Amino acid sequence: MAISSMILSLSATEAIAANASPMVRIAEIEVDPDQLAAYKAILAEEQEASVRLEPGVLMLHSVAIAAQPNQIRLLEVYADRAAYEAHIRSSHFVKYKTSTERMVRSLKLIETTPILLCAKAAADSKSLVPTCR
Amino acid sequence: MAISSMILSLSATEAIAANASPMVRIAEIEVDPDQLAAYKAILAEEQEASVRLEPGVLMLHSVAIAAQPNQIRLLEVYADRAAYEAHIRSSHFVKYKTSTERMVRSLKLIETTPILLCAKAAADSKSLVPTCR
Repeated sequence: MAISSMILSLSATEAIAANASPMVRIAEIEVDPDQLAAYKAILAEEQEASVRLEPGVLMLHSVAIAAQPNQIRLLEVYADRAAYEAHIRSSHFVKYKTSTERMVRSLKLIETTPILLCAKAAADSKSLVPTCR
Repeated sequence: MAISSMILSLSATEAIAANASPMVRIAEIEVDPDQLAAYKAILAEEQEASVRLEPGVLMLHSVAIAAQPNQIRLLEVYADRAAYEAHIRSSHFVKYKTSTERMVRSLKLIETTPILLCAKAAADSKSLVPTCR
């Protein structure tokens, strides 16, 4: 299992190095205000599991619009379309989808073309290293 | 100069560790289609410089909407409001703002509250390490 994860992880890295086409999307989600806290907890759990367990899930960033807190926006970055297809079959995604079905009032998925994705990441506990892809 | 950067970098790391409140924003930008290639090049240069040079600029992700390529969306993450105020005074941001003034048809800044920001980052050339903040 550990070896298999490592092989998958190397493949994802190599895909990026080879400039494989990442799939980048914005999700616009309106949530029932009465179920917002529960929704956010389930979403965060799903994001954490997806980025930790799936080699091809490169980023999942979620925010709530300050003036309309039940309007959620996600920026989703997958190594390629195959990584996305694998993601929607994962047990943690299926759990998220099933658990939040009655909390989500509307969902709009917007396909995008990445221009540049830049972030600092902690290379150790004391420094942040900038990388762009 | 190197020492000063290191001190600033440590401060940014400590601010995150101490759970200082990051400022997270979505920018919705409509660009003159005739000037789109030039705009994207200037934007990418500004993003790269900001994340590399400014300790408090944690992420700058830019995408174009696939069906409307002159509609640009940015997810901007600053360590705190002071980091953002410093950013808009930086020479690379002022250069971006001045150079693109006649390319941008409209700009909408949407304040958000982060739920969870998760990404894999390359800890070395061969592996991607997941982190959420």
